[in-house]
Amino acid sequence: MSVDEQYQIHLQQLKHKEPGFVETIYALGNGHLGVRASNPLQGNSPAYPGSPGLFINGFYDLTPITYGEAYFGYAHNNQTICELPDPRYLIFSVDGVRSDETPYQIEMIDKTWDMASGLLLETFHVTTPTAKEFTLTLESFASQAERHLYVIRYDIRTLNFSGSVTVIKQHAYVNQQIARDNTDMRRAQRGNTLLQTYLPAAAPTMRISTQKSQLSLLMTMQYLGSDPRVQLNAHADVPNYEIQLQLTPERSAQFSFGYSLGEIHNQLSFEVNQARYIEKSLARLAGENFSSLFAASAARTRQFWQDSDVIIEGDPILQKGIRFNLYHLYQAAGRDHSTDIPAKGLTGAGYEGHYFWDTEMYMLPFFIYTQPQIAKALLGYRYATLAEAGQRAREMAIKSGVLFPWRTINGEEASAYFPAGTAQIHINADIAYATDQYISATADTDFLVSAGFELILETARFWLAYGNYADHGPQAGHFVINRVTGPDEYTVLIDNNYYTNRMAQHNLRLAVKYAAELKQLAPDKLAELAVTDAELAAFKKAAANMYLPYDAQHQIKLQDDNALNRPRFDLKNEPATNFPLLLHYHPLVLYRYQVNKQADTLMSDFLFPLDQDEAQLRRDYDYYEGITTHDSSLSRAIFSILANRIHDPDKAQAYFLDTALTDLTDLKGNSEDGIHAANMGGSWLSLIYGFAGMHYGTDGLTFAPQLPAGWFRLSFKIKYRGRQIDIDINQKTATFNLLSGAPLTLYCGPEACDLSQKMPVTVDIKHA
Amino acid sequence: MSVDEQYQIHLQQLKHKEPGFVETIYALGNGHLGVRASNPLQGNSPAYPGSPGLFINGFYDLTPITYGEAYFGYAHNNQTICELPDPRYLIFSVDGVRSDETPYQIEMIDKTWDMASGLLLETFHVTTPTAKEFTLTLESFASQAERHLYVIRYDIRTLNFSGSVTVIKQHAYVNQQIARDNTDMRRAQRGNTLLQTYLPAAAPTMRISTQKSQLSLLMTMQYLGSDPRVQLNAHADVPNYEIQLQLTPERSAQFSFGYSLGEIHNQLSFEVNQARYIEKSLARLAGENFSSLFAASAARTRQFWQDSDVIIEGDPILQKGIRFNLYHLYQAAGRDHSTDIPAKGLTGAGYEGHYFWDTEMYMLPFFIYTQPQIAKALLGYRYATLAEAGQRAREMAIKSGVLFPWRTINGEEASAYFPAGTAQIHINADIAYATDQYISATADTDFLVSAGFELILETARFWLAYGNYADHGPQAGHFVINRVTGPDEYTVLIDNNYYTNRMAQHNLRLAVKYAAELKQLAPDKLAELAVTDAELAAFKKAAANMYLPYDAQHQIKLQDDNALNRPRFDLKNEPATNFPLLLHYHPLVLYRYQVNKQADTLMSDFLFPLDQDEAQLRRDYDYYEGITTHDSSLSRAIFSILANRIHDPDKAQAYFLDTALTDLTDLKGNSEDGIHAANMGGSWLSLIYGFAGMHYGTDGLTFAPQLPAGWFRLSFKIKYRGRQIDIDINQKTATFNLLSGAPLTLYCGPEACDLSQKMPVTVDIKHA
Repeated sequence: MSVDEQYQIHLQQLKHKEPGFVETIYALGNGHLGVRASNPLQGNSPAYPGSPGLFINGFYDLTPITYGEAYFGYAHNNQTICELPDPRYLIFSVDGVRSDETPYQIEMIDKTWDMASGLLLETFHVTTPTAKEFTLTLESFASQAERHLYVIRYDIRTLNFSGSVTVIKQHAYVNQQIARDNTDMRRAQRGNTLLQTYLPAAAPTMRISTQKSQLSLLMTMQYLGSDPRVQLNAHADVPNYEIQLQLTPERSAQFSFGYSLGEIHNQLSFEVNQARYIEKSLARLAGENFSSLFAASAARTRQFWQDSDVIIEGDPILQKGIRFNLYHLYQAAGRDHSTDIPAKGLTGAGYEGHYFWDTEMYMLPFFIYTQPQIAKALLGYRYATLAEAGQRAREMAIKSGVLFPWRTINGEEASAYFPAGTAQIHINADIAYATDQYISATADTDFLVSAGFELILETARFWLAYGNYADHGPQAGHFVINRVTGPDEYTVLIDNNYYTNRMAQHNLRLAVKYAAELKQLAPDKLAELAVTDAELAAFKKAAANMYLPYDAQHQIKLQDDNALNRPRFDLKNEPATNFPLLLHYHPLVLYRYQVNKQADTLMSDFLFPLDQDEAQLRRDYDYYEGITTHDSSLSRAIFSILANRIHDPDKAQAYFLDTALTDLTDLKGNSEDGIHAANMGGSWLSLIYGFAGMHYGTDGLTFAPQLPAGWFRLSFKIKYRGRQIDIDINQKTATFNLLSGAPLTLYCGPEACDLSQKMPVTVDIKHA
Repeated sequence: MSVDEQYQIHLQQLKHKEPGFVETIYALGNGHLGVRASNPLQGNSPAYPGSPGLFINGFYDLTPITYGEAYFGYAHNNQTICELPDPRYLIFSVDGVRSDETPYQIEMIDKTWDMASGLLLETFHVTTPTAKEFTLTLESFASQAERHLYVIRYDIRTLNFSGSVTVIKQHAYVNQQIARDNTDMRRAQRGNTLLQTYLPAAAPTMRISTQKSQLSLLMTMQYLGSDPRVQLNAHADVPNYEIQLQLTPERSAQFSFGYSLGEIHNQLSFEVNQARYIEKSLARLAGENFSSLFAASAARTRQFWQDSDVIIEGDPILQKGIRFNLYHLYQAAGRDHSTDIPAKGLTGAGYEGHYFWDTEMYMLPFFIYTQPQIAKALLGYRYATLAEAGQRAREMAIKSGVLFPWRTINGEEASAYFPAGTAQIHINADIAYATDQYISATADTDFLVSAGFELILETARFWLAYGNYADHGPQAGHFVINRVTGPDEYTVLIDNNYYTNRMAQHNLRLAVKYAAELKQLAPDKLAELAVTDAELAAFKKAAANMYLPYDAQHQIKLQDDNALNRPRFDLKNEPATNFPLLLHYHPLVLYRYQVNKQADTLMSDFLFPLDQDEAQLRRDYDYYEGITTHDSSLSRAIFSILANRIHDPDKAQAYFLDTALTDLTDLKGNSEDGIHAANMGGSWLSLIYGFAGMHYGTDGLTFAPQLPAGWFRLSFKIKYRGRQIDIDINQKTATFNLLSGAPLTLYCGPEACDLSQKMPVTVDIKHA
């Protein structure tokens, strides 16, 4: 197997070839746009199977949420990412029969995605209704160099005939937005029709507008070449390129098109600036061709791998699967400080394109340590929505601080079921935790001053206003946070969720810590944000008195005050077909039992490794493993990491393998709705925090490597406070190589490694 | 003031004259049908203000409930009582101008409802667009003798002209069902269009069918008289009566019409039996006239007052208000064993015409003790829906027993917000409690055997399957019931709600008790229901070990395990305009505080007077009074009763007065949506259980009378185990008079009163 091969996804290697699944797997994206790898003849025709889709991160429409019973303060609107016209679309006309009017037969022959360069190569075998056969080859990429560009090259070669073939390239028309079944709340469910209008321009140019969210964007399509057969009909009702070809099996034809996909504009501003926007859109492709555009994009992609690759030796399928995950993460992440990572990336409309805590807790670490500028942009999105989060806190009768939405695109709460939505107020502390992680790893004090501290401060303020000091029972004198939902959505509206309280405590302490730093760095900022010593003292006091439920009998951390009062759900005797349980049991059933959808209390053990010794961790692990279904794709990665920490490598490997290939193997059966982005982030966590054992130890950045049997090598790089470090682990040793930046000391187990550039340090791995 | 006057409601005495409010106040009904006292010219014209409506108890349609996020086992359909064509409707045509095409001016001059007979007398002043003026007088009643009949007499007298007036009497057409705003979940919100078709018959006859619930009923209209000016157009497109009149101010015209409003039929059965149903419908009015029909109805109404009247001397407004409440209760209660009491009676579409626990806990006692045949019919409705309740238990993964719906018409759960709906599983025990109350008061062993025991048994079975024995904490070894919502909807999904647990305990004990009785009475029934000794032992054990949360520090019963962990809501500083809180705070805010919508734990103290001594009751009372908003109309009656028990007559009177006149004074501002039926039942409870102090004491039926200052007399009758007893209380004495039935001993305070017929016993009232 060549090196390149390890970066390639071949159609023949996929588990199955259902159109929806394949479209997701091969979806291309660059954080701004995402294109499903659909049938290029489909456009909007229901005669072809599949769900084509172009998604622009942050381009959504609103529909009112309808409640059976509506209460005060409920989220008002669904926010739904828009399914935009497929840029892969083209129309054939052979023997007077058009493929958009009479379906052609079209068969996938091959797809090869070369993730090393970002190029997707596809071959289709097409048969016209008049039995003419030809091969249609597509080469396409979403530019990593210029986020507004998507580029595609078509190659047409006849097979059983010589003669005339007409190709028409025009914008597809999307006449209906997502409206799927209502039986699975994880799928997107509704949307308005888009408004698509053609604007006068030198190339087919469409304005796409939403109905309620008042957004518009430009979509221009340009032929990249000079073949005189390509005729531009700029003034047709439907502006298009028409290509009259005379083909023989020996003489194929090849045409490239570039799509320029604009920024998202408020409709008013769009109208004022329309001419300028058109000019800017067309200019992005001026003087370019497929090769030049591809070269720029591929260079960026290679740089991505340079910084972010993870090498696993010993399991080639896993190696490829991990790269698949990492590249999809890269494709999914917004980079413009006004977008985040949708739960399904930009590969599908599942979860309506919403952003969740998934970003901060599952995906951000990968970016923090390998693409910190993207991590900063993602936190920048949260900062950009601070005003909406403040407004939400007021709606929730909280007089100070902010409450970030559980799910959102535009910064407003879009959760339609608050017990498993708004009640997950841990989102606040998740964002604060992630902000601190970013600052700690990058030492980006500019960000701390300009945005990070405010994120941490305003979320801390919320906790102080939301919680209270109990005057009763075992909680008396403690700071308690009642009626919340932790990460585990099978246990809602509980009192003193361990995870939430521990995270809130951390959030409060971070505010105190960084306030002290700002006293040196930017005292004006503290004044501007009206931070007082009294407030900081209140933070400190609440943190010090935070109630963290613990059961003395089992000696385990308790998920909540009443956790053990509930009987255990009989998971062992539950038929496999009844999972995920939420599709088979009324919430009131699940809520009544000790049964977890995912890591909850253990999430705290994961995030705060110094909180507990190994014995405590093992007790927690054993207990919660017994009641966890892993019905959420966010669960297994955490169990894998903690299995490493309790030195159970078999479990660590088993959990990891169950989850590392979730999408490639369609493990959940719903990859057609889009990738499981958080799960992909989780696979990186499992490798780096689990098998490499990276964490902040008592002395500093620490590794505790432990490779599964059968792996020869695990190697990756991290960026850390202005440095880049290469870590190369095998069964016996770990080698640390400072590639750039100033010398530093890190730790491998208890052993200090003093690193300076180009002087690798190799340490023997001591197994516990 | 004459005696009759005390039974009359005059328009001039009402707080205000907004059409919707007046329509509710004067709504007529008989348990089967209800007619709002709307503008008779309105029909379906939006040109006139008001909300006319005919309601038939149990006649509803279905629409799918739309959820923001739907989960497994959620209630599927809204059930909405249908707004049927207004039978008061008539059309005038004067000078060629029809009142249904061009609005006439119509002004309410007077309304007098004589509740002693049930007759509603109304006078309107009508001005045509051509400035002709006349007086329109209506006399109407819903027959208490034949529940399918509604009868109305029109009298027309010109004022400023002599000339021709045409009256057209036809069925109104209702082209849109209830679709109100979505901002107040207490109002009805949606419905389908009804299908109204005319059937060939000897009088205008309409079939009204629902779209989804597959129900039909017949509505026939017949002229009751022989005036030749009344022309029947039986074969017109819209069959009608047309009346050509030549009027002078000296010569009025008078016409009576009877409406026969059929049973509710399944549509298939309707089609098969249509001819027979028409015949039966018309026959109900054959040979009758207004006077004969009214005489029969008024006789039944007089009998109602004979058994159910409550006399209060010293407060004439209150006296009238109480009668208003009692008569509305009578008008609201289904009597056919297949309908119940809608939360708004048959006076409006609020709460969509649903039946709640309101019936069993607030209204049934009035019927048990004064109209036991109606109480039996109401419990019969629950028995008739036992199969649906069994099905619901299965949906909730409960393998045995039944779970009654929180809100319903057809027996299926229609609650669209389960935390304040399905989670109120106390409904099961409420029904069992009420069944026992009925059996205890009536000694109706036939009902016990045929239906009552099964209700008690199947609800008890549910508890055993739903709860569990705790093995942890203060609950260890106890039977616990987690994640429920008690009566107080500001505190949801809690563990060990005191009220729920105490009621479940009672339910289990009732099953054991009545099983023992059935061993003697009907051993076959036990076998048929597969009752085993082991099951009864399990009931006994669960009841004996039921966890009842109690706080040792405050020495109060606890609303739930974690009740005191929550801070108290600052009710004192809350602006009055912020009540009810549920319209001003997100549920997650309310849930986080100690704040009650209504009596919850105190409801248990009320229902189980022997559970606590007065000191305990006072502590409970003082505590919960401090956190209760009375945002529910079900609250104050209970506080009034308990204030009497702790010998705080001022509070008892204040709470009672706040609530006794809720609808007459439009206290809640929403009487236009219909009466607050449970609150009306509560006013009877306050009088009889509160001021008269009726309860089951340790020795038997006991009274503890205590009149408020200013009352001279409180007098009422009860039926009790085949007897009727008159109770006559003044400030100093209570007199008990056995009107019929065998001698018995009852108690007044500690004092035994041996009663035999016509030998009243007078007891001095000893104040504590």
